[in-house]
Amino acid sequence: MPSIVILGAGAMGSGLANALVRAGWEVNLWGTWLDDHLIDAIEAGSPHPRIDVVISGKVTTFRSDDLAKAMDGVDVVALSVASAGVPKVVELALPGISKAQALWMTTKGFLPAEDGTIQLLPAGVRAIAEEAGVELPPIVAIAGPVKANECAADEPTATIFGCKDKDVAVKYAREARSDNYAIEPSDDEVGVEVCAPMKNVYAIMLGIADGLQDKTGHPHHNLKAATFAQAVREMSILSVALGAKEATAYGLPGVGDLEVTGLSGRNKVYGSRIGRGEGAKTALETMKELEQTVEGVPAIPLAVNLVEQTDASLKERMPLLFAAQQIVYEDDPNYADVLAQAVLPPRP
Amino acid sequence: MPSIVILGAGAMGSGLANALVRAGWEVNLWGTWLDDHLIDAIEAGSPHPRIDVVISGKVTTFRSDDLAKAMDGVDVVALSVASAGVPKVVELALPGISKAQALWMTTKGFLPAEDGTIQLLPAGVRAIAEEAGVELPPIVAIAGPVKANECAADEPTATIFGCKDKDVAVKYAREARSDNYAIEPSDDEVGVEVCAPMKNVYAIMLGIADGLQDKTGHPHHNLKAATFAQAVREMSILSVALGAKEATAYGLPGVGDLEVTGLSGRNKVYGSRIGRGEGAKTALETMKELEQTVEGVPAIPLAVNLVEQTDASLKERMPLLFAAQQIVYEDDPNYADVLAQAVLPPRP
Repeated sequence: MPSIVILGAGAMGSGLANALVRAGWEVNLWGTWLDDHLIDAIEAGSPHPRIDVVISGKVTTFRSDDLAKAMDGVDVVALSVASAGVPKVVELALPGISKAQALWMTTKGFLPAEDGTIQLLPAGVRAIAEEAGVELPPIVAIAGPVKANECAADEPTATIFGCKDKDVAVKYAREARSDNYAIEPSDDEVGVEVCAPMKNVYAIMLGIADGLQDKTGHPHHNLKAATFAQAVREMSILSVALGAKEATAYGLPGVGDLEVTGLSGRNKVYGSRIGRGEGAKTALETMKELEQTVEGVPAIPLAVNLVEQTDASLKERMPLLFAAQQIVYEDDPNYADVLAQAVLPPRP
Repeated sequence: MPSIVILGAGAMGSGLANALVRAGWEVNLWGTWLDDHLIDAIEAGSPHPRIDVVISGKVTTFRSDDLAKAMDGVDVVALSVASAGVPKVVELALPGISKAQALWMTTKGFLPAEDGTIQLLPAGVRAIAEEAGVELPPIVAIAGPVKANECAADEPTATIFGCKDKDVAVKYAREARSDNYAIEPSDDEVGVEVCAPMKNVYAIMLGIADGLQDKTGHPHHNLKAATFAQAVREMSILSVALGAKEATAYGLPGVGDLEVTGLSGRNKVYGSRIGRGEGAKTALETMKELEQTVEGVPAIPLAVNLVEQTDASLKERMPLLFAAQQIVYEDDPNYADVLAQAVLPPRP
């Protein structure tokens, strides 16, 4: 029976815990210093506060001061904390990670290095390990169209495990599989990592098209579809520029994850508010008051920096990303035109 | 001022008429023998009965017995009748088509030849012309994520013009462009033609995921996203097998059109009914009573035949198409499992 410790008892970590119990794994779930209330609920057998699903009683829970015990002797470590928590948690967990056979990562995002360059998360984790003189096991990037609540509740879910060593991806895709949790193995770590934060940005833009319907009283489906197609194109362009395979953006991590993120979720809701005419800044304040983090917002300037540091000529091929910057950060009142200009094919 | 006759006064023909008036074209709109009530409404300045948008007074209308007059001296002929009407209308219009500089086609579908083989529509039209000993001008396949009502109402719309002669596609993409009607030129006629009918099939399957939410009371977003990604993959597989470019399925005609078709429309509504548990046959009868044609339903067996005549080994790479056949034509009560099996990655 393979064993894992999942670091972070939030939505995705807890959803993964349930899926792995079903696949026959021994699961330790470690909560950070911010997760005590989540661990309380899990231990009480109450629904997880973030996803409203009960976490299996077979999961062994650990509090933040029990990290060493939680990591003791496990085959795999999974990093499932918020991206802002990655540096600190990785530093604390390095001794345990170095003894594991693999480091899985469900956490996604762009990580600014100290010199200001933008890294994908695995590169950031590798840099932390290198600085500490610790050797890491293979990293498995986990992404794709997975709402954690559905994953936890055993609804049919397709995900992707991306590891530079394809054999490692295949091994875990096989071992973690259960009837309703299905994994596509891939050797494209970079593609998986790029699509995940970018789709949050583009989901805001899809939301704007929805909001325009509320504002004007008639649908903007053609605009939304053009936005979707352009978003997929841009995820592919950026991925390829960073060394990923084109196919990844056209599969589960790109097309699939954009579909699910554009269906619902906070990024889409925020975009709808902009589309309805609330103003980008006002709408963001409203989201904050509702304690709704909009992941796509901080991702925009990081993505812009990443594009500029990678290849400045990408800019003209990624007009939708720059339209997102103009709408969200410059609060452009002509957002409807800005969006349409970015996604309609140019005059030939 | 370029001039066009649009054959067929239905939703798409009338939507195109409005778009071309805005681009400065001289537009003749010819109604078939089934379109008299539509022509009546257009001439009265009432909203078009199918799309609820007024058609421009600059459009010159013609009744079915005035075909020759409608076609006289135009630069371009656009075929916008229902696919079942293609053989008859093309036969009648051949003299006029042969004098035009291009034949545009917004009509989409699979056309069974007399020997039972399945043709794409342009191949069917070419066969009719060849039999009559008439030479055709270049064909421009028009598709992409276009709801006719939004196109007619001047909402932002992106479409694609596919012509084997790319220069022809570029010429018309330029001439037909207006602020909100934007055209991507392509040389991939086949890709454009394959994606259009296939997306109707797959929109039914997306609808099933929506219906499962109604039935079970909890969302099936992960399943819907996996279905979306698999649908895109299958459109790409079939397109490439038929000689198209892979990129087409990943752009406006594939990803884009599937997005808009999966958002709303009759195929999606029909799928939702199946998902809710109405039964595929009963649900289809209900749609018929409501006079709602579900284009994806007849497309399924034609697509299955096309796959089998093209390369039988494609079958195992296109499980979602065959799941559609099993659910819609065999009325499989285990449709939820059939869908999940088709779209979840197999055990590695």
